[in-house]
Amino acid sequence: MSLVDNLVSANESYSSSLSDSEKSLPLPPGKKYAVVTCMDARLHPAKALGINLGDAHIIRNAGGSAQDALRSLTISQQLLGTEVVVVVKHTDCGMLTFTNADIKAVIARNLGEDAAHESEGADYLPFPELEDAVREDVQFLKSSPLVCDKAKQSVSGFVYEVETGRVRRVV
Amino acid sequence: MSLVDNLVSANESYSSSLSDSEKSLPLPPGKKYAVVTCMDARLHPAKALGINLGDAHIIRNAGGSAQDALRSLTISQQLLGTEVVVVVKHTDCGMLTFTNADIKAVIARNLGEDAAHESEGADYLPFPELEDAVREDVQFLKSSPLVCDKAKQSVSGFVYEVETGRVRRVV
Repeated sequence: MSLVDNLVSANESYSSSLSDSEKSLPLPPGKKYAVVTCMDARLHPAKALGINLGDAHIIRNAGGSAQDALRSLTISQQLLGTEVVVVVKHTDCGMLTFTNADIKAVIARNLGEDAAHESEGADYLPFPELEDAVREDVQFLKSSPLVCDKAKQSVSGFVYEVETGRVRRVV
Repeated sequence: MSLVDNLVSANESYSSSLSDSEKSLPLPPGKKYAVVTCMDARLHPAKALGINLGDAHIIRNAGGSAQDALRSLTISQQLLGTEVVVVVKHTDCGMLTFTNADIKAVIARNLGEDAAHESEGADYLPFPELEDAVREDVQFLKSSPLVCDKAKQSVSGFVYEVETGRVRRVV
C-alpha cells in the first residue's frame, strides 16, 4: 500500500472510534490555550501533555518558533478566544545543527538558482542553544504588540527531552 | 491545579509509558514525509491518520497553510530527508469565517494602535472556500522553487471532516 493509502486506511478505524460528543465539539478551544511546538517526528504533543480533543490549538513548525507562529497565535487569541501560550522546544532539535548560511548553501546545491534566489532574504530561524531559544521565544511573545495581555502574563516555556519523554520548565 | 501543572502531571505518566525504542528514535522522520494541517483543537492528526512516533514531520498552523509552512517544509526536505507532503485542511475551519480586513479591525479594537500598525502589511491567509484552498495550496507547493521534485510529484491534498472524523482526498 502507498503511504497515502495507509493514512486513509488508518483514518477509517479512527473515524469509527470517535464518539458523538467528539464529533460535535465547538470550534473555539475548550481550555483556551495554545501550544507552540516543533514539527519533529519524535514529538506527540497531545499524548505527551495530556491534551484532549477540543482542548487547545497546537501549532507546530520547525523548531517550535514563536515568531513563525505569530500569525496563528494572533488568530487563536483575537478570533478564537485563547488566552494562554505554552512554548515547548526539545532536545536534539534539528534547529541546533545548522546556520542560515548552511541551509542556503544546501538549497543552492540541491535546488539550483531560482531556489537560491527565493531563499536569499529568508530567516530559517535556527538556534545555537536550546534553553536560550526557549527564553528568547517567551521574551518575543511578551514584547509583541500582537499578543494579548493575559497571554503575556501567563506564557511559559518548556524543554521536552526526546530521550526520556519528560518536559522541564525553563520559563 | 493550574493548566500548566496539569500538562506537567499528564507528562509524568506519558514519559513512564514510553518504550526504550521510542526514546531512541533518530531525528529524521522514518517514513520521510511531512503533513501540513491546521492548529484546530478538534484535529488529532497522529491518531486520525495513524502516524506513529518517529514517522513524519507534522506542521500545524492556522488553516493548515502550505505557504505559512514553507520555511518548515524546506528544512524538512533539505536537511531531514522528507520527500512527500500531505496537506490536510478541515471542515468548519475558522479561516472560512473572516477576511484580512475583519481581523485587522479586531486587532485595532482589542490591542490598540501599535498592534494595528504591526499587522498592517500582514496576510492572515484566510480562505473563502475549503476545497479550492486545498487545491491552491497543492498548486503553491508544485510551483515553488523551494519544494523538491519528488515532493512536487507526490503532494496530495485532503479535507478532514470534523463532523465525522473522516478524510477525503481532493488532490
